[in-house]
Amino acid sequence: MAEFITSRDVLVGDTADVYFARTIEILKKEGLNPVTTMEVFASRAGILCGIEEVKALLSTALSNIKGEVWSLHEGEAMERKEVVLRITAPYQSFGLYETAICGILAHCSGWATAARECVEVAGDIPVISFGARHVHPSVVAVMDYSAIIGGCQSCSSISGARLAAIEPSGTIPHALVLVMGDTVAATLAFDKHMPPNVPRISLVDTFKDEAEESLRVAQALDKSLDSVRLDTPRERGGVTVALVRELRARLDFAGFNHVKIFVSGGLNMERIRQFIEKGVPVDGFGVGSYITSASPIDFTADIHEIEGKPVAKRGRIPGKTLNSRLKQLI
Amino acid sequence: MAEFITSRDVLVGDTADVYFARTIEILKKEGLNPVTTMEVFASRAGILCGIEEVKALLSTALSNIKGEVWSLHEGEAMERKEVVLRITAPYQSFGLYETAICGILAHCSGWATAARECVEVAGDIPVISFGARHVHPSVVAVMDYSAIIGGCQSCSSISGARLAAIEPSGTIPHALVLVMGDTVAATLAFDKHMPPNVPRISLVDTFKDEAEESLRVAQALDKSLDSVRLDTPRERGGVTVALVRELRARLDFAGFNHVKIFVSGGLNMERIRQFIEKGVPVDGFGVGSYITSASPIDFTADIHEIEGKPVAKRGRIPGKTLNSRLKQLI
Amino acid sequence: MAEFITSRDVLVGDTADVYFARTIEILKKEGLNPVTTMEVFASRAGILCGIEEVKALLSTALSNIKGEVWSLHEGEAMERKEVVLRITAPYQSFGLYETAICGILAHCSGWATAARECVEVAGDIPVISFGARHVHPSVVAVMDYSAIIGGCQSCSSISGARLAAIEPSGTIPHALVLVMGDTVAATLAFDKHMPPNVPRISLVDTFKDEAEESLRVAQALDKSLDSVRLDTPRERGGVTVALVRELRARLDFAGFNHVKIFVSGGLNMERIRQFIEKGVPVDGFGVGSYITSASPIDFTADIHEIEGKPVAKRGRIPGKTLNSRLKQLI
Amino acid sequence: MAEFITSRDVLVGDTADVYFARTIEILKKEGLNPVTTMEVFASRAGILCGIEEVKALLSTALSNIKGEVWSLHEGEAMERKEVVLRITAPYQSFGLYETAICGILAHCSGWATAARECVEVAGDIPVISFGARHVHPSVVAVMDYSAIIGGCQSCSSISGARLAAIEPSGTIPHALVLVMGDTVAATLAFDKHMPPNVPRISLVDTFKDEAEESLRVAQALDKSLDSVRLDTPRERGGVTVALVRELRARLDFAGFNHVKIFVSGGLNMERIRQFIEKGVPVDGFGVGSYITSASPIDFTADIHEIEGKPVAKRGRIPGKTLNSRLKQLI
Amino acid sequence: MAEFITSRDVLVGDTADVYFARTIEILKKEGLNPVTTMEVFASRAGILCGIEEVKALLSTALSNIKGEVWSLHEGEAMERKEVVLRITAPYQSFGLYETAICGILAHCSGWATAARECVEVAGDIPVISFGARHVHPSVVAVMDYSAIIGGCQSCSSISGARLAAIEPSGTIPHALVLVMGDTVAATLAFDKHMPPNVPRISLVDTFKDEAEESLRVAQALDKSLDSVRLDTPRERGGVTVALVRELRARLDFAGFNHVKIFVSGGLNMERIRQFIEKGVPVDGFGVGSYITSASPIDFTADIHEIEGKPVAKRGRIPGKTLNSRLKQLI
Amino acid sequence: MAEFITSRDVLVGDTADVYFARTIEILKKEGLNPVTTMEVFASRAGILCGIEEVKALLSTALSNIKGEVWSLHEGEAMERKEVVLRITAPYQSFGLYETAICGILAHCSGWATAARECVEVAGDIPVISFGARHVHPSVVAVMDYSAIIGGCQSCSSISGARLAAIEPSGTIPHALVLVMGDTVAATLAFDKHMPPNVPRISLVDTFKDEAEESLRVAQALDKSLDSVRLDTPRERGGVTVALVRELRARLDFAGFNHVKIFVSGGLNMERIRQFIEKGVPVDGFGVGSYITSASPIDFTADIHEIEGKPVAKRGRIPGKTLNSRLKQLI
Repeated sequence: MAEFITSRDVLVGDTADVYFARTIEILKKEGLNPVTTMEVFASRAGILCGIEEVKALLSTALSNIKGEVWSLHEGEAMERKEVVLRITAPYQSFGLYETAICGILAHCSGWATAARECVEVAGDIPVISFGARHVHPSVVAVMDYSAIIGGCQSCSSISGARLAAIEPSGTIPHALVLVMGDTVAATLAFDKHMPPNVPRISLVDTFKDEAEESLRVAQALDKSLDSVRLDTPRERGGVTVALVRELRARLDFAGFNHVKIFVSGGLNMERIRQFIEKGVPVDGFGVGSYITSASPIDFTADIHEIEGKPVAKRGRIPGKTLNSRLKQLI
Repeated sequence: MAEFITSRDVLVGDTADVYFARTIEILKKEGLNPVTTMEVFASRAGILCGIEEVKALLSTALSNIKGEVWSLHEGEAMERKEVVLRITAPYQSFGLYETAICGILAHCSGWATAARECVEVAGDIPVISFGARHVHPSVVAVMDYSAIIGGCQSCSSISGARLAAIEPSGTIPHALVLVMGDTVAATLAFDKHMPPNVPRISLVDTFKDEAEESLRVAQALDKSLDSVRLDTPRERGGVTVALVRELRARLDFAGFNHVKIFVSGGLNMERIRQFIEKGVPVDGFGVGSYITSASPIDFTADIHEIEGKPVAKRGRIPGKTLNSRLKQLI
Repeated sequence: MAEFITSRDVLVGDTADVYFARTIEILKKEGLNPVTTMEVFASRAGILCGIEEVKALLSTALSNIKGEVWSLHEGEAMERKEVVLRITAPYQSFGLYETAICGILAHCSGWATAARECVEVAGDIPVISFGARHVHPSVVAVMDYSAIIGGCQSCSSISGARLAAIEPSGTIPHALVLVMGDTVAATLAFDKHMPPNVPRISLVDTFKDEAEESLRVAQALDKSLDSVRLDTPRERGGVTVALVRELRARLDFAGFNHVKIFVSGGLNMERIRQFIEKGVPVDGFGVGSYITSASPIDFTADIHEIEGKPVAKRGRIPGKTLNSRLKQLI
Repeated sequence: MAEFITSRDVLVGDTADVYFARTIEILKKEGLNPVTTMEVFASRAGILCGIEEVKALLSTALSNIKGEVWSLHEGEAMERKEVVLRITAPYQSFGLYETAICGILAHCSGWATAARECVEVAGDIPVISFGARHVHPSVVAVMDYSAIIGGCQSCSSISGARLAAIEPSGTIPHALVLVMGDTVAATLAFDKHMPPNVPRISLVDTFKDEAEESLRVAQALDKSLDSVRLDTPRERGGVTVALVRELRARLDFAGFNHVKIFVSGGLNMERIRQFIEKGVPVDGFGVGSYITSASPIDFTADIHEIEGKPVAKRGRIPGKTLNSRLKQLI
Repeated sequence: MAEFITSRDVLVGDTADVYFARTIEILKKEGLNPVTTMEVFASRAGILCGIEEVKALLSTALSNIKGEVWSLHEGEAMERKEVVLRITAPYQSFGLYETAICGILAHCSGWATAARECVEVAGDIPVISFGARHVHPSVVAVMDYSAIIGGCQSCSSISGARLAAIEPSGTIPHALVLVMGDTVAATLAFDKHMPPNVPRISLVDTFKDEAEESLRVAQALDKSLDSVRLDTPRERGGVTVALVRELRARLDFAGFNHVKIFVSGGLNMERIRQFIEKGVPVDGFGVGSYITSASPIDFTADIHEIEGKPVAKRGRIPGKTLNSRLKQLI
Repeated sequence: MAEFITSRDVLVGDTADVYFARTIEILKKEGLNPVTTMEVFASRAGILCGIEEVKALLSTALSNIKGEVWSLHEGEAMERKEVVLRITAPYQSFGLYETAICGILAHCSGWATAARECVEVAGDIPVISFGARHVHPSVVAVMDYSAIIGGCQSCSSISGARLAAIEPSGTIPHALVLVMGDTVAATLAFDKHMPPNVPRISLVDTFKDEAEESLRVAQALDKSLDSVRLDTPRERGGVTVALVRELRARLDFAGFNHVKIFVSGGLNMERIRQFIEKGVPVDGFGVGSYITSASPIDFTADIHEIEGKPVAKRGRIPGKTLNSRLKQLI
């Protein structure tokens, strides 16, 4: 499984809202460090993700300090406003990390939830996370990790796959086909130089009609061809139900029943549902921006008890909130 | 200005889609390294952001190699499908970075564009980026930097402010008020311990009605009080036009005309517009999730020329695309 | 029960459409006074109300004349276009009262129907009619009477309560709190001067946050406090589900489980439904403008038989309309 | 003009919310009677009506007491939330009448505003208030009075006309036609028995097609026929633009250019607009339920000053509200 | 049943798209005449109609040539994209007729499908096709034939009835009533001169209110009157549910229970449904423009096999399409 | 120009509604043949078409009879409900043709109006009628004639072109390409066998990507190639703005600036507008089902005068309707 290491930036509070740094400074000067219970909940239902990274952070923060942390598990479904994390410890030991804790959970849960939506619709057909190109490289790894937690079978980024302890997955970029000048030539070069455990998945929409190109590639590689990938640009109508069906029929007519069809390009829950409901013979879905454009799920952290006494700001109910689903994390 | 340093992860290609790593390996084995022109455009109009970070990356990548890069400036408005970046260099020198380049531009431009929308509506009234708690700490700095590029006057995160070379901005968290047990006490402690250049902005919705609490705090700090901040929770109706007006009237009646009113909590372009159109006396807006929940703006990179010959995949027009707005970046 | 006395104005026809007065005059001069059957139906479904007042009017009108009147009972549900009243008598004896009969039924049934909608949604929780301030004082009594017929437990007007033969219900107006300058002081004065059978219901939103004020009042009156009433103005977010829940929790935490929560302010069927469906611990609803802004239910009176012969104007079916639900009223 | 006499019920507070009666009692026992300023505003824009009746009430209430009252004029347009009435006097002298004052203004302004909407759309063509049958007889007079204040030329009720000091207006009811068995016979009887100053307006949709019946009536009465009234039931398609045009053409063909056409039945602002925009030759509109089903415009009364000191409940701004449009009423 | 004769124009290809004529010429010159399988499908679901006329055309075309044709039956329901016709023959023998085959099926199936929709909603009550006046006389016969195939009981055109081998159906036009000057006179003339097997159906909306006129006609013809037809113009509200109910009641009151009510004028599926769902006593529906304004159902013809070898253009699946519902036509 | 010959079927009344045949029979037996004025108007605005064919019919009908006919010109714009045709003649001479007259105008005006909509949007770019395959062959000629009247430059049917006295227009069907097995081979055969005045327009979407195929065909025919036609099936995304732009660019890059681009397939007013508004380099539009699926424009014929006396059925205004745009037709 993933091993998370909290960066120095986070630990010294550089990524925090400045007012938390100021608060810790004031409390130190005032000599106040009460045992405080803080609870965290999400603004909408979804899949909780990031709790392992939060654990790494809090383990460091509370390493020599008496405190305890309860939470849901990584990947569990959570309700809107359900308490998913509860920290009880002297306030100075963890107050600085409110920003980071909320931020980790917000971003990761947003991605994992969107991934789960696609995975649930896709049923038995694998979904691969293809969104690395849509997020800042600093979060590529956690984004793809979150997609895997959400149920994706694999992802395209090397660092994401490493964090999730799986193999990355990919085909051939249009760039290779363009540089080599021909899809068949590019696929043969790939076949020649790549280790045998990497599946041969050819991209068939660069120069020619997809059906024509698929047959050319299949004839060139025959049994060693694993799949063709359709990534037809919107300018050519995108990947439609009819196109997949026709391609399947033409491949089968020509005796290439073993060649799988992998689909990508603007896929979202709705479009996957269309393929599934119509029984279209797709063997894999590559999903990018649907996952990466998911809004972070805003998380809120509230103090509910100070030195054993129920408190709360206006709008909240004082005292610990009952949630029997919480498990002890630290 | 910001100084961007490309991380080792990005440079070795760990954050890239695995197929680019494979492509470079294949091309090396095939001995192919043609001078290639790649163009990048956005899927929707917005504010271009991230180009400085891309410059840092490409400067390293092309350090000893003949190539050139043209682009729009950081913070310039871009049209849908307008070419905003053009790289011409031997393909092996930059092909691996397609994922990172698109990802940097996507995330940063998404944030900057959302920030700009708020800033334009707010007119003369400053907007502060308050969204650090909604994104992963690894991108807190670039998110707040992008918000500043989009026009925000300041931001709450220390690292974001540092990257944008400004001072961070903040008030008092509910946590400090809760730990100290009283808003007036918390504000006095803040006033006592913070350096004089930090403005005294009190948060007045924790325990009491905002109008009552504002008057208490103003009486306690008098001239040293800079502002009160309204962050009323939705459970108490949020911050409304009428609340701000009434608070202004009550402060003025009591002689506290110098105390400014700062508003936050679920603000977005529409809600800011309401305040502005009705002439409500707000002195600052804190915007969080509107900026952080902005979808990345998907960017697409296409090869248009190889060794001086126009090429393109299906759906694209071969040859360099005319755009006289491009300036030489490298 | 209510005792209705028909005013002289109505009996002499002053409140009638002038053409009915003229018609009676013409028929007298022509010597025409056929036994005529007139039927009355409503333009939409609802709760029939006003039939007792109509009975008082017709009893006077037909006091020495041979005629009969059939109708549904006060408070019965009626269908759209169902005949709810049938009068058979010499035309000159009742023709003048068509305007008044329709008007009484229209206004009263409109109010009773709206009240019933709230009462049905509220289930076991009492609904009080608070709308006296939204209607002309000449109809305050019949409006509140109609609300009681519709199912309200009580009403705020003295005359309405008298007509419906119940006790009026009320709390404390904002005016008393403002004049006395403090909610606790006003409630103590109320407790001191009012007879013991009047429940002590304090209004807690005048000066302070409702939760804070409720605890102050509860501490001052303790066991003699019956309820607190939330009437939070829209400028402070109105009375929300979350506010009631939090107030209940804070009262219980402080040991005031016996203090009930009464809610008012812009309540309608939809908002009551929200409280009920979410299981919010409300002990009473005060409904005003939802009942008073109900449109009158237009009633239509048609002649269907003259001297035993079926007749009808175009668009109506000649002859008496079958309705086995009608009971003899006179 | 109208002469309003306040009923005993109102003066003794029977129509008031019971808590005002209790408040006066408490204040008397506490010996509190501060000079208080109360302001009244409407929840939506409209035509202010009822202020003359309020004047009558307050004149009695303040007859021997030092106080002053400012307001807009009867029939003036008012803005949403604009102060339309301001009372300054010892609280015990007027506090009991808050319910009645708001109620009078609410109901009357609602009716006057709806009437005004129709009148403005109708332009030069007169609008008559026909809604007496849709309201309780106790408010028939003030409803029709309010319609006249809103701009109606006349009304159908005798008491309403008397209050507004005009002549009532009416045609012939279907009842007269049915009792007499023929439209021509009924119209001739009307002509025979009514004084010459009452216009002869025949109702032509009872038995026959309107065009056929109109020609029959016109031939029978010739020059003494003032108008025909179309009140076609919905079951026969209601009164349409085409029907009026055709009827006008057929009357003109037959030489009855002097006969006017009066339209009624479910008219509202939209339907009047259709007739006007299409230039249909209508000579008068009878409007009923559009006026009577207008919701009362809720009015709110707030205390803003006590013994010269600005006060206000939460959600309101303390102190008198500037409104230079107010004129002294008492 | 219908006997279709293919016109000379069609046989020589004059009605064809010119490029088919050119194609046949080119293929002749090139000496190409392969055995070709063409399949035809519809762009939306509906009732197949026109296949008998296509049979007549292909029987002539393939009279001395080896070929076979399979299809669904005339009047069968077909799915969207289902193959409804398959021709296998030398291409030159039938290629010229692609335009005509598609056109016949398109127009006839469009009409039949619309007719079926009305018939299904009408249930046991007969529907008559009245649309001859809305289509070019050259297709009146096939339009009415298609309506009959769709389920209509009869039609108004003589040629349509002849093609469908039934009796035409009609009433009396407004023209006859206007020329004769009176509805009763026109109906008596019709009764006098028409053979006894033609039902006496009077049109009762020309001069007088329908209810009045129906009673006049019924009194004049008594038992020999079969029906009255309501065709009320929109200017008089059209034929409403209420009008039919009232007319039925008035006829029954007067003892004319045997007189049926026939309805026409702007009827469509929705309006028929209203009559049916409300149990209105209608005895027949005349439908015109709903059927005639139905869009043709576009049909597509594709080649799927040439000389036994599966082929297809892009977007289609090569080889014959399985459809076990097809029956041999030729 | 077109020469219309009325078919025997129409003249003997076979295509008429049967009740007109009966009416003529009755009137003959009654000896009634008054000079009657009938007016015809359309139910919606549009382009009047069919009046020349109506002229042919009426010229025969009135050949020896005193009568006159006034109308708008073929192809003139008409308003909703504007009188477009007025016949004055003895009723027996033309009454039988009401069905045919309305039907001719309805169908032809519907088609011409739809064609005009496309033509107006297309501006200078020619529109060709391609809908022969969507209508019954009996109306192919009048449909294409109407499209020409509506403004189409040409049409695909031979008979339509003949009626409109122009040359038919066409390309190559998919059938020819499929039978010959290759697009280039089919185009070369076309070039070889067709007369030089027929433009060489190749259909380029049968087997290969359109851009690839267009370049192959252009290289094979060079200067003799007039155009390529895009008719891409929906399964491949249809013909998009981007496809045309890319094809134009690729043709120009390869030096084939003279080759025009012709577009077809599901075009309608909206899609043509998209091409025009975006300045896409299209050289011709082929429109089929948009024209053929246009609903007939229902026409209504009313009698307005009999023997010089104004008459009209209910809902119409008696007497001739003023329309100074009418010209004498016969």
